[in-house]
Amino acid sequence: MEKVLIAGRWREANALSSFQAANPANRELLEPQYPVSAWEDCDEALNAAVTASVALRDISGAQIADFLEAYADDIELNAEAIIDMAHAETAYPKETRLAGGEMPRTTNQLRQAAAAARDGSWALPTIDTAAGIRSVYGAIGPVCVFGPNNFPLAFGSASGGDFAAAIAAGNPVIAKANSSHPGTTRLFAECAQRAAEATAMPAGMVQLIYRTSHEDGERLVSDARTGATGYTGSRQAGLKLKQAADLTGKPIYLELSSVNPVAILPGALKEKGAEIAEEFTGSCLLGTGQFCTNPGLVLLLAGESTDRFIQAVTAKFAEAPVGTLLSAGVETSLASNLQVLVDTGAELLVGNTAVDEGRFCYANTLLQVTASQFLADPETMQTEAFGNSSLLLVAESVDELIQVVATLEGNLTGCIYSDTAGADDDAYDQIAGEMRVKVGRLLNDKMPTGVAVSAAMNHGGPFPATGHPAFTAVGIPGALLRFGMLQCYDNVRLHRLPCILKDESPNGTVWRNVDGVWTQANLG
Amino acid sequence: MEKVLIAGRWREANALSSFQAANPANRELLEPQYPVSAWEDCDEALNAAVTASVALRDISGAQIADFLEAYADDIELNAEAIIDMAHAETAYPKETRLAGGEMPRTTNQLRQAAAAARDGSWALPTIDTAAGIRSVYGAIGPVCVFGPNNFPLAFGSASGGDFAAAIAAGNPVIAKANSSHPGTTRLFAECAQRAAEATAMPAGMVQLIYRTSHEDGERLVSDARTGATGYTGSRQAGLKLKQAADLTGKPIYLELSSVNPVAILPGALKEKGAEIAEEFTGSCLLGTGQFCTNPGLVLLLAGESTDRFIQAVTAKFAEAPVGTLLSAGVETSLASNLQVLVDTGAELLVGNTAVDEGRFCYANTLLQVTASQFLADPETMQTEAFGNSSLLLVAESVDELIQVVATLEGNLTGCIYSDTAGADDDAYDQIAGEMRVKVGRLLNDKMPTGVAVSAAMNHGGPFPATGHPAFTAVGIPGALLRFGMLQCYDNVRLHRLPCILKDESPNGTVWRNVDGVWTQANLG
Repeated sequence: MEKVLIAGRWREANALSSFQAANPANRELLEPQYPVSAWEDCDEALNAAVTASVALRDISGAQIADFLEAYADDIELNAEAIIDMAHAETAYPKETRLAGGEMPRTTNQLRQAAAAARDGSWALPTIDTAAGIRSVYGAIGPVCVFGPNNFPLAFGSASGGDFAAAIAAGNPVIAKANSSHPGTTRLFAECAQRAAEATAMPAGMVQLIYRTSHEDGERLVSDARTGATGYTGSRQAGLKLKQAADLTGKPIYLELSSVNPVAILPGALKEKGAEIAEEFTGSCLLGTGQFCTNPGLVLLLAGESTDRFIQAVTAKFAEAPVGTLLSAGVETSLASNLQVLVDTGAELLVGNTAVDEGRFCYANTLLQVTASQFLADPETMQTEAFGNSSLLLVAESVDELIQVVATLEGNLTGCIYSDTAGADDDAYDQIAGEMRVKVGRLLNDKMPTGVAVSAAMNHGGPFPATGHPAFTAVGIPGALLRFGMLQCYDNVRLHRLPCILKDESPNGTVWRNVDGVWTQANLG
Repeated sequence: MEKVLIAGRWREANALSSFQAANPANRELLEPQYPVSAWEDCDEALNAAVTASVALRDISGAQIADFLEAYADDIELNAEAIIDMAHAETAYPKETRLAGGEMPRTTNQLRQAAAAARDGSWALPTIDTAAGIRSVYGAIGPVCVFGPNNFPLAFGSASGGDFAAAIAAGNPVIAKANSSHPGTTRLFAECAQRAAEATAMPAGMVQLIYRTSHEDGERLVSDARTGATGYTGSRQAGLKLKQAADLTGKPIYLELSSVNPVAILPGALKEKGAEIAEEFTGSCLLGTGQFCTNPGLVLLLAGESTDRFIQAVTAKFAEAPVGTLLSAGVETSLASNLQVLVDTGAELLVGNTAVDEGRFCYANTLLQVTASQFLADPETMQTEAFGNSSLLLVAESVDELIQVVATLEGNLTGCIYSDTAGADDDAYDQIAGEMRVKVGRLLNDKMPTGVAVSAAMNHGGPFPATGHPAFTAVGIPGALLRFGMLQCYDNVRLHRLPCILKDESPNGTVWRNVDGVWTQANLG
């Protein structure tokens, strides 16, 4: 049985039971066994994290940056082993997805987080010289990270976006591995622990538990010692954690579900329908559709160009190779959620059938509904069928489309394709106004699956896409704010202030708001 | 029966029943009757607020600023009537408290909010030119404001900090008057409605309901049409609203309770014990102790100077005039919460008795405990006795004090008084480290009751002081962020961007983060 990493030491778990990951490409269980931890492991991890949090009060952003950079370097030294393991556990293609995509994104993200920690601008230091009041975001305390199944590297519990943001904000992390890639997470934690030792981070800076009971998970996120939680995963499990954390007032940042509406207006289809069909198919089937920002609902207006578009994408979905899904759970959910849509009146265009019993997979599937069918039961029609599928909605008028958008829950993204000549402009304006308040990121003429690690990115959105519409899970430095608490100093003697708030800038690079003016200069 | 303000019109309420405010100075009910609204009033208000939200998409920050300034002007024209009403409903002194303090604070806050709305910097516009991604905080949607009993003007539901912040962020407000000053809130809403009409704001920009059932309050904050809620008041009622809002993922910003620990170290007491005793008494009895930041727990180290301090403040509390409390409820809660402390082992130094049956009041009260008594039941010992009282805690050592601080719940503020010669410095460093993470605002050598409206202020803190440690309820522009959602534009055509994100600055004053650099300049 694999060991857990607690208080800086790999040790036997207090195991209630064990589990194994499966190889999606052949449905076989992978060695070794991983423990399902008892509460004692969580309890010890929380104690160690609190001790680490206290030690971190005296550790500078620059030292944390050293750790994150050493960690990124160590990952690169071990990239082959990590990629092999992730490939075995996820069946993602090695070259195109893991080595070429997620791995550089992961180390790049860690290095961006390092730069943010070293610089300090993320913490929005604000100084009111007349009032003698200064404030800055400081560490929120131990952060629990529950990573998703679909990004074993770039959103892994001990390597990804939430991890990097929580550490860069000055917090220790308790990583709960995703059960579909425990080995990948373990390899990352080994690199992290080595880097933490090499850079003199406190024991308990990074800890790893593989799995707990649901009850212990809820206890973990609501424990008095926890500062905050980052969770990406299923809506059902996430909402239970949210309820537990909310009851004790512990911030929990969730990324739950999103159908990511894409409106494609007639002018755009006339102008470049074939191109958009290609783009949509690529985006929707990328990674076998297992993206948080997968375009799961396409909004169309009835007409000839729409008919042609539907024929084209139907043909493409039929022809495209069927990708492998991450787990038996994903396969089952995809089939059952598609069935929900069909039962609610969606018409099958292509797919919706098992195709290969030798691996986890399901046919590329397109369903179609009319706007009036959708509007008859919009809640059920928004069932997310996570995977290589999408629902095409055809409305009779722009008004009907707007009604549809008005019924949408919160989503991560919303896209609108319109023509360049201006024929779609009126429709755009009406739809965009309604869509804007439903989504975190509004796109034009582009599919939503690319999520750049940009300071201007919002990978967030209104509930239930996330738990709070003011925060982004991707994008540095913005993502760090989730793991900070606002700390104000009123009349505190100057020498007692944290370096970032002293008159002299700690590094000459940090942006501080001094009496309403953003500046990198020293005070006075 | 007074009318409610819904959709821009004063009309009869759908009343389930009625209530009256009381004059705290003579315990008599005040005319007139105010309605307890049925759900229909909330429902109509929500519909009107949604309509107003849609209209606000096309209204600039500058126009909203015009409204807020017109409103502040209108308040000043009607200041005498408002102050008379607030005096009758709260018994706060007219000159020192209402005319001299809260009124200018209120209009100043509205004007600061106007300036923030006009400028736009609050929304942290962020532009990544290389990636073609731009983001900014935008309006979150209809905001429900539940104001507290203790600031009828500056934190009034239709006039105070939450109101100003929500409006300045571009949202309509549904104000739920505090039941102890419905008349004051009504007068403000009249001014607001006049100003809204004069500046062509949408109907439903400001709406007023006086009271609902608890059930309808919970329904209101969790309704799909609601954007967010600002609540300041009792912990019990606040937690019920929070639970309801959390279940539907609606942000709710709460200010619930806080004992505001003040550590006064021996060196400081030797240096200026008499002065600190005076300062503490003034702060604790100010407004009859009815401040969110009232110093309710004083942390002392056993010794001669502490003994002298305790004698001095006990004498002062005995001598000081007994102020009037806001309501029968405050009076009853104060007495019963003090009894909880006494029952848990606190020793009575002075007070804890009824003093004047002709008005709402209770004797100035000081209780004392040892650190070990406190540590035997820290949760109960943190019972907030809202009003003119405080609990003095005497510890045998700095270690014991730190243990006490470690058991504290989240608080709005924490203060440490230390000497200027350095004798207290070691103790300061140890206590401050532990206190820092428990409070939103850390003070030196100063009582917490002054809450400056400063950009660097944090009137917030970890749960249960508030519902989320990343946000402040006081301080402009910071307070506006609570009522914004992060809106990202990815590849959106330049002419379709909101003005604040276009290449040309809309006003030349807004600070925007362009490729990591804060600037007021145009792009390119």
